Amino acid sequence: MALYVQKFGGTSVGSVERIQAVAERVAGFRAAGHQVVVVVSAMSGETNRLVDLANAVQAEPDERELDVLLASGEQVSVALTSMALLERGVAARSYLADQVSIHTNGHHTRSRIEKIDTERLREDLEAGRVPVVAGFQGVDAQGNITTLGRGGSDTTAVALAAALRADECQIYTDVDGVYTTDPRVVPSARRLDRITFEEMLEMASLGAKVLHPRSVEFAGKYGIPLRVLSSFEETGSGTLITTEESDAMEQPVVSGIAFARDEAKITIQGAPDVPGVASKMLGPVSAEGIEVDMIVQNVGAAGQTDFTFTVKRSDYADAMRLVRKVAAEMGAGEVTGDNRIVKVSAVGVGMRSHAGVAMRMFDALAAENINIQIISTSEIKISVVIDEKYLELAVRAIHQAFELSGSAEEEID
Amino acid sequence: MALYVQKFGGTSVGSVERIQAVAERVAGFRAAGHQVVVVVSAMSGETNRLVDLANAVQAEPDERELDVLLASGEQVSVALTSMALLERGVAARSYLADQVSIHTNGHHTRSRIEKIDTERLREDLEAGRVPVVAGFQGVDAQGNITTLGRGGSDTTAVALAAALRADECQIYTDVDGVYTTDPRVVPSARRLDRITFEEMLEMASLGAKVLHPRSVEFAGKYGIPLRVLSSFEETGSGTLITTEESDAMEQPVVSGIAFARDEAKITIQGAPDVPGVASKMLGPVSAEGIEVDMIVQNVGAAGQTDFTFTVKRSDYADAMRLVRKVAAEMGAGEVTGDNRIVKVSAVGVGMRSHAGVAMRMFDALAAENINIQIISTSEIKISVVIDEKYLELAVRAIHQAFELSGSAEEEID
Repeated sequence: MALYVQKFGGTSVGSVERIQAVAERVAGFRAAGHQVVVVVSAMSGETNRLVDLANAVQAEPDERELDVLLASGEQVSVALTSMALLERGVAARSYLADQVSIHTNGHHTRSRIEKIDTERLREDLEAGRVPVVAGFQGVDAQGNITTLGRGGSDTTAVALAAALRADECQIYTDVDGVYTTDPRVVPSARRLDRITFEEMLEMASLGAKVLHPRSVEFAGKYGIPLRVLSSFEETGSGTLITTEESDAMEQPVVSGIAFARDEAKITIQGAPDVPGVASKMLGPVSAEGIEVDMIVQNVGAAGQTDFTFTVKRSDYADAMRLVRKVAAEMGAGEVTGDNRIVKVSAVGVGMRSHAGVAMRMFDALAAENINIQIISTSEIKISVVIDEKYLELAVRAIHQAFELSGSAEEEID
Repeated sequence: MALYVQKFGGTSVGSVERIQAVAERVAGFRAAGHQVVVVVSAMSGETNRLVDLANAVQAEPDERELDVLLASGEQVSVALTSMALLERGVAARSYLADQVSIHTNGHHTRSRIEKIDTERLREDLEAGRVPVVAGFQGVDAQGNITTLGRGGSDTTAVALAAALRADECQIYTDVDGVYTTDPRVVPSARRLDRITFEEMLEMASLGAKVLHPRSVEFAGKYGIPLRVLSSFEETGSGTLITTEESDAMEQPVVSGIAFARDEAKITIQGAPDVPGVASKMLGPVSAEGIEVDMIVQNVGAAGQTDFTFTVKRSDYADAMRLVRKVAAEMGAGEVTGDNRIVKVSAVGVGMRSHAGVAMRMFDALAAENINIQIISTSEIKISVVIDEKYLELAVRAIHQAFELSGSAEEEID
């Protein structure tokens, strides 16, 4: 008998039929003798509908009221999901954030969970009931409704699993696990049976949008085994995200290939090579709230340096304007940019102990005549920036170079 | 400077445009220096949409979960209404039942308000803010969401007005006040400037569905002046419902003509005329949860009595079956019934001091050859049961007999 926290996202509860399927699945776990806590998101489409209403009423919707508005979406889901369970004879009870209680700090629209009172949930579990908890929402010290921002329901599920010391936190979604890369780009991409939190974080933040990075970080911090599963398939064990690296004899050096579209780069040439130049360049950009991703600095001509960073494509024009201004003030050289670039990364804890991983990646790109514009590495990741027209070709080439395809590789477990 | 509680129903907040109109109106009251507490219902159509979802998920929706589900409707309304006020520069803040708090006893789907904590509301009012409170919902001692049943938002508004000792509770709706009778039946029906709580109760419970009887009862009990106004018209003072009778010299004996369609009557003839016969007849009917309206007993032949009562038409078949059974057991005579009847009533506190009101009503009906099947009277009301085909004719005749039409009568104030 295990205790599972099971989270079902918007598409998984997107219709009466889908809610019935969720209840059917939870009923199966109860019948098998397990304890289950369910976390649900708003029905798909509902959040957008509510945001549209808010924008129609107020030019810049008040954040406190936006949280009240959006939280109603999960309220509908918990009630309907509880009803569906009760209809199957499974004892269930819905909980909103203030009833559980999920205490957050008070930043509206992007709160963080600080504490969860598990007393009522424990009572329910011991009485054989399934608590159905509203994801995405919390309550601050003054009793105001707060929301957790993007991916918030995943975070609710992981936080509940941590607070209840659950055996596993299962995230049901519209894909059946984490893949070696996007199957739409590489059809032979293989589902990973397991992946470490660190790898998952790199994969997620690089654009493999299965789980929100915050929930992965949270799970890693508290050592909660996290499993990504399909809510649309009856069977399948999904992908387990865990602290333990695979103990297979032949650990793969690279677990997956992630990529991010819609990037842009800005280069300042001939900046004075003195301390503080990087912070001077990036200061105005970050003050404007623009997120900077890669930062690369190269030695240039004597006493000068070339400095490049990347931003989201939508921030390119603003960033360019700010940098041109500061470059002129500093007497730096030309500022150039390119908003038609992408980032491709190889991720794997295995590469820590394997030399030559980078070379294998660069060779694969060279063989396809793909020019590498920027290189950046971390302990478990190598990222390159290339022209966006090569994205698919590059991902396929690297995926093949590391023999990640399902057909060419044995399953790990 | 006065303190108003203003309640806006589902059609009054039924769209973004309507919500903007509500905010505009409230902003006007604030600009005039008044304090305002706003109570809103769910956007029109929303409650039906949610009930449909519930019915699709569970054959008999669980009442606790149904309350959670339905309460989300008002949550959307309070957030959007607050945003619309903020957009106009009017400080506002939304409150759900548990935040105010509106304490109820724990009967789901039909709770009653027991206590309201006014501290946060008073703080807001003193700080110049408009609290926007979710109608229809409450919270029980265990923190569960409860709802107040039909007309619940009116009750929330009146309860808040009582708790805050407001100067007036204004109910904005899709009609501009209480009329002497339904204008669809009598086009010359006149809007009443004022009416007493007792009269309003008789009018409301008899089918003039402007205000829910419970909210009128509540307002009467606490002496809260209650005003019904149109949310669709810019001006107009609506109808004031108050404890004070009109002090006009020539007080009208009858204030209005109410009627109820879809009634049915059942008569037991030749029942033994002994104590306890009425309760024996009605016991099984009331045990089945069937609401009995009029009850009339007449002296019949020696030692026998004729006994008639009315029920809603939808309960007619069930009631008939139950009464046939009990009549047979008691050895009563024939049980007859008619499910094609209606009830028409003249209502007015003025009739207490005026003889001849009943005769005037009966004469009007006789002049139209309308046969009266049952008569029942109270201090401020005379009701008759007639064949449904005469409904419109009877209402017009009585309305005219008491000179209630706008054209034939001076305004009171």
